[in-house]
Amino acid sequence: MSDSALSALIIPMNDPHFGEYIQNHFKCIEWLSGFNGSAGTIVVTLEDAALWTDSRYFVQASTQLANSEIKLKRMKMPETESIDRWLKDRLKPGDRVGVNPDIFSLSEYAGLADGLNPLSLVEVDDIFQKVWNNRPVVEQYNISLLDEVYSGEPVISKHERLVNEIGVKEDFLYLISTCDDIAWFFNIRGKDMEYNPVALSYAAVTKDASYLFVGTGTLTDEQKAMLKNEKVTIMDYCDFESFIASYPTNAVRIAPQDKISFRKYKMALSNGAAFLPDNTRGGIIANQKAVKNVKEITGFRKAMILDGVAWVKYLKFVEDRLNDKVNPIDEWEAACRIAQLRSESDLYIGESFAPIVAFGPNAALPHYEPSEISHSIIRGNGFLLTDTGGQYICGTTDTTRTISTGELTEEQKRDYTLVLSGMINLAMARFPKGTRGAQLDILARGPVFSAAKMYMHGTGHGIGHYLCVHEGPQSIRMEENPVQLKPGMVTSDEPAVYEEGRYGIRTENVILCREWCESNYGQFYEFETLTLVPIDTKPIIKELLGKERIAWLNEYHSRVFSELSPYLKKPEREWLSAKTINID
Amino acid sequence: MSDSALSALIIPMNDPHFGEYIQNHFKCIEWLSGFNGSAGTIVVTLEDAALWTDSRYFVQASTQLANSEIKLKRMKMPETESIDRWLKDRLKPGDRVGVNPDIFSLSEYAGLADGLNPLSLVEVDDIFQKVWNNRPVVEQYNISLLDEVYSGEPVISKHERLVNEIGVKEDFLYLISTCDDIAWFFNIRGKDMEYNPVALSYAAVTKDASYLFVGTGTLTDEQKAMLKNEKVTIMDYCDFESFIASYPTNAVRIAPQDKISFRKYKMALSNGAAFLPDNTRGGIIANQKAVKNVKEITGFRKAMILDGVAWVKYLKFVEDRLNDKVNPIDEWEAACRIAQLRSESDLYIGESFAPIVAFGPNAALPHYEPSEISHSIIRGNGFLLTDTGGQYICGTTDTTRTISTGELTEEQKRDYTLVLSGMINLAMARFPKGTRGAQLDILARGPVFSAAKMYMHGTGHGIGHYLCVHEGPQSIRMEENPVQLKPGMVTSDEPAVYEEGRYGIRTENVILCREWCESNYGQFYEFETLTLVPIDTKPIIKELLGKERIAWLNEYHSRVFSELSPYLKKPEREWLSAKTINID
Repeated sequence: MSDSALSALIIPMNDPHFGEYIQNHFKCIEWLSGFNGSAGTIVVTLEDAALWTDSRYFVQASTQLANSEIKLKRMKMPETESIDRWLKDRLKPGDRVGVNPDIFSLSEYAGLADGLNPLSLVEVDDIFQKVWNNRPVVEQYNISLLDEVYSGEPVISKHERLVNEIGVKEDFLYLISTCDDIAWFFNIRGKDMEYNPVALSYAAVTKDASYLFVGTGTLTDEQKAMLKNEKVTIMDYCDFESFIASYPTNAVRIAPQDKISFRKYKMALSNGAAFLPDNTRGGIIANQKAVKNVKEITGFRKAMILDGVAWVKYLKFVEDRLNDKVNPIDEWEAACRIAQLRSESDLYIGESFAPIVAFGPNAALPHYEPSEISHSIIRGNGFLLTDTGGQYICGTTDTTRTISTGELTEEQKRDYTLVLSGMINLAMARFPKGTRGAQLDILARGPVFSAAKMYMHGTGHGIGHYLCVHEGPQSIRMEENPVQLKPGMVTSDEPAVYEEGRYGIRTENVILCREWCESNYGQFYEFETLTLVPIDTKPIIKELLGKERIAWLNEYHSRVFSELSPYLKKPEREWLSAKTINID
Repeated sequence: MSDSALSALIIPMNDPHFGEYIQNHFKCIEWLSGFNGSAGTIVVTLEDAALWTDSRYFVQASTQLANSEIKLKRMKMPETESIDRWLKDRLKPGDRVGVNPDIFSLSEYAGLADGLNPLSLVEVDDIFQKVWNNRPVVEQYNISLLDEVYSGEPVISKHERLVNEIGVKEDFLYLISTCDDIAWFFNIRGKDMEYNPVALSYAAVTKDASYLFVGTGTLTDEQKAMLKNEKVTIMDYCDFESFIASYPTNAVRIAPQDKISFRKYKMALSNGAAFLPDNTRGGIIANQKAVKNVKEITGFRKAMILDGVAWVKYLKFVEDRLNDKVNPIDEWEAACRIAQLRSESDLYIGESFAPIVAFGPNAALPHYEPSEISHSIIRGNGFLLTDTGGQYICGTTDTTRTISTGELTEEQKRDYTLVLSGMINLAMARFPKGTRGAQLDILARGPVFSAAKMYMHGTGHGIGHYLCVHEGPQSIRMEENPVQLKPGMVTSDEPAVYEEGRYGIRTENVILCREWCESNYGQFYEFETLTLVPIDTKPIIKELLGKERIAWLNEYHSRVFSELSPYLKKPEREWLSAKTINID
């Protein structure tokens, strides 16, 4: 810091691709502080240091920072000031605050420059290159091409649609830094990130061609030839900056402001080219990617059957072991078991996120994860919550089921029924074209509100097709999001109740927005439930669930049985038959 | 226009107070074109003229413009260009487009200047003063003071709350141009506008005093003395501009940008004073006014009883006359009757909006109004929709009831039941502090969506306390509105179905947001239904309405009967008893 005459340094948990996960190479916060949560920002001055993180990590950060001098700043708590405020309280106008412009998006950088004024925001190179001995290198693994049987659309067609949607008459260079947008556009999948099957990559698209920047040797000559047939030029990952800096000046540079690093933005404009923001919320590609095509949807349905089969085996296994007094099951064993059961399918690639298997009070922590060394035994009365998902070559799954492990209190039964009511309400919704997720959120949340309870997360997130399990741009949550729901969008439906220190309940299906009918009033949409996993009916209070939702549940269970039973052996088939029996 | 070297002139249907109604003096569009709808903008160039209006007035405007050279521009239709576009297609860069800055708000003016670029927006005085012979004068009638028994809060207390909320340490001059905000703040009511009991007025508030600008002679000396006791200085309406222009420069001028005319804004800053926008959505006063105090709420409840009594007499009268084959009732007679029945109360002031009494296909027009010369006879099978409201000194009402006048089709019964389901769903909602109207809208709209139908207006608008029946800043509609619902806010709940050329159904109650309970999850709110008017149960399909909503309706009807019956004579009491009998 002294070398660069800096008074402070801001270190976010980011890489230049702005995805959900980062490679170890970019885990500077963990190296610096020991804190290994998934979200946080460290700010360092010459005298002081602090870590800002959200409520998921208050306990963990407090433990992991205990032996350091880094203070914990609990975000959204009344006593916690913003980073801007904290820095302004410590520095003088004009003092230099350094950031690495490659891990701040253009919009974040602009916001920071504004918020920190009258301090000076200055760009510094990645200082950890100098100070971090034995820093892990960036790892780039072999890339696979996704067959059109699964992707449903060749690159050349996606290219044409993108160019049309950009709609710029003049020459342009459209810049893509987000690995899942690139994976979708080029029909490639990678192994460079945990859970998200993407390759570290950049891309640039012109009216006539596309350029894909990947790690040296990650594509075979054969793969390159196939991509070349789709007007794709393969270039080295490291050449992206020089390419965008030296590309003819007359091509206007276009990118979403929150999905390009400030450094890349400046490089792209360094020879005097103009910039045009892609103002589509989330970027044009994310919006195209969110609307799944027929083959992708067919793949999702297939993945849901494969996943449902694994779930049935898992649920029966857990139920059997609940009765085993000698050898009780624990959360970690359960988490491993479902992954192992999924892996019995040839189309299975891996988990789509870290499995949540949480018993009793653990389930009250929405992001609890058991580990080999820290987990609870599943024994006694209560709820067991399992939230896991798989990556299949034909689609991505994400399912939560909460099952009773013994006697429940009336409050637990009521809460279970309310959560299920909300999940079904949203699944049954019908609505006109133009509807936004925030308008529908109350359908899932309302029953929980009626017990004066609430859950502090969204009701639904978009889901990628054999891609990120958390995908934009649509969402179903309380907060306004201007993105409209469109046929082909795949979203989760996951209301919940969390009673701190006592129990947690979440029931999650994945739903597909599809056309319902066209009337004099215009086009209407509805949801198709994709997930095929039985729902525990024991805790249901039937009068509270009500006739209409009971009818939905019975029909759902019939479908689960008829879709899954052909793939089950007799014991599991009989178990599923009993679990999916109609309730009246 | 030639005198001012103008190439075009934009004439909106506005006055400098930005309310829902304008006096005849400001009806320049009607004088110029013959069009007398409540919304529209005329744009005139030297060769051309056009009127932009919305779908409510397409038919009416087309008729009224038939003999003029003014073209009709149907807003929100695909073929209709914006005013900006239309002008740019006809004029050259730099051409002068004139507007009267006193009937454009600061934000409208800024938007226009931006949108019209490269044309030049220029300010011109009200040109109609020169060209309109026998133009009606601005009329200002005697003002009354609203007793604290009804207002519940003296001016001096409102002043203190406003100053606190403004929160500016330095000297300031807060400017108010909206007559209902002024009426609420100063506890005055006027007769200068149709339906809205306000006086044409301006106001300015400083840290220590308030200034009220009203028409000469509209307040008695006694009233002035009473206001003076509350630190109010009375000044003449015409002196507002010179006052704000000459007020000490060191006082920063504050106003909501959409509630001050561009002219007033410029006057206020003409001596070099600074400007601070009031960025509270709708302005600070509108937000304070929207939260009704205990006395206002008590008054609303009283007004609902008075109104309910008139409604019962009206509904019985209509029902009796439906059986009168010789002397059938018509819409106009019905509309006059309910107003006459309301006027039997000593606390009644007048109607709160133009009555809508619409039979059969007429009810499919959401803003249909019968008149003495144009109305239908109410005879035969179908629905009669009545949407009327009253101004009482203790509160404002707004109720819609749709009754069957004979046999109904299955579709009509289903639609009636769905509209009622939506109305009840919203009335039963419980939700946490922080909830916005857009989150709740689907509760009312969802049942209508389930029949692939929709209504193109909001579900709920705020309602003033013996003030404007349409009041901000909260709303319950599909469109995002960041204003949160707060205890004390009074809002309508009015889902509907409109089948063009066939029938219309709307059921509207007024609901009060109130505290429900505080739980571990925070504060929760609910609604209290204020309106006390029986709902026709004949068209209801019980299985579709469902147990929970039937229970709500039965409880509501019990309450209607017990609240209203003490004020009814035997025939009406017996009629109401039969109409409010429980359905099973």
